[in-house]
Amino acid sequence: CQKCLRVYQRWSYLIQCILLCGCCLTISYTNFYLFAVNVLLNVKLSEDENGQYVSVLDLPGDVLIIPQATLGGKLKGRKMQYHANIEKEKGMELYSQFVTLCEKELAANAKCMEAGVLVKHGTYGNRQVLKLDTNGPYTHLVEF
Amino acid sequence: CQKCLRVYQRWSYLIQCILLCGCCLTISYTNFYLFAVNVLLNVKLSEDENGQYVSVLDLPGDVLIIPQATLGGKLKGRKMQYHANIEKEKGMELYSQFVTLCEKELAANAKCMEAGVLVKHGTYGNRQVLKLDTNGPYTHLVEF
Repeated sequence: CQKCLRVYQRWSYLIQCILLCGCCLTISYTNFYLFAVNVLLNVKLSEDENGQYVSVLDLPGDVLIIPQATLGGKLKGRKMQYHANIEKEKGMELYSQFVTLCEKELAANAKCMEAGVLVKHGTYGNRQVLKLDTNGPYTHLVEF
Repeated sequence: CQKCLRVYQRWSYLIQCILLCGCCLTISYTNFYLFAVNVLLNVKLSEDENGQYVSVLDLPGDVLIIPQATLGGKLKGRKMQYHANIEKEKGMELYSQFVTLCEKELAANAKCMEAGVLVKHGTYGNRQVLKLDTNGPYTHLVEF
């Protein structure tokens, strides 16, 4: 897989969710998303009640997906440029695929269904209002 | 400069500050920090009252620096590994230098001194409590 998506992952202890913020760069294959969603939902970044690290599927926890086009910015002099970002229409399509795949993965997981966990997501292309309350920013950058 | 520091930058519109979250990887030269601080305080990422993008020095805005060792994580299978992170003692020393340089830059800026802007920072090596309330996550990754 080419390095074609940056995903920023933060786990909030209070709301028991994973917050994924992605910006879409050049993407060649739809299968790539299947791989990325699988990795992100299965990486052991969530702390359970015994202090063990488990995946958000195993926790199980809610998932919050936030699009952030600014993550594709490159510094040029004193300004940020976003020329590497994908065009908006294509970005919306890929973002929608990403969200749908996350929803399907959670729906196919018995533990998640039983717990009634939710996938919530922002709107691609709009400014996102965000409030966070955490006992530790727990940010990871996963490059594919 | 080698790619030796990842800095995560987010601007909160409500509290008019820049939040810098860094983790220290292998650093060779102290002068590098001077360069990094200069870039970060001068990049035009803050929106003024006329909707123009200006630097945090020109706004002027408060600066919040948050250490985040988890940014140095690399995915290995389903787990995150932090082997590339610098040892804690050296990290504390470099983090302290970074904070001091930010404070000096703001203290040397007439506009910042007049406005009485503040540099606030977290404690390296401890879990940081963080609350954010923003009308748009505005995250940038600056690699040096």
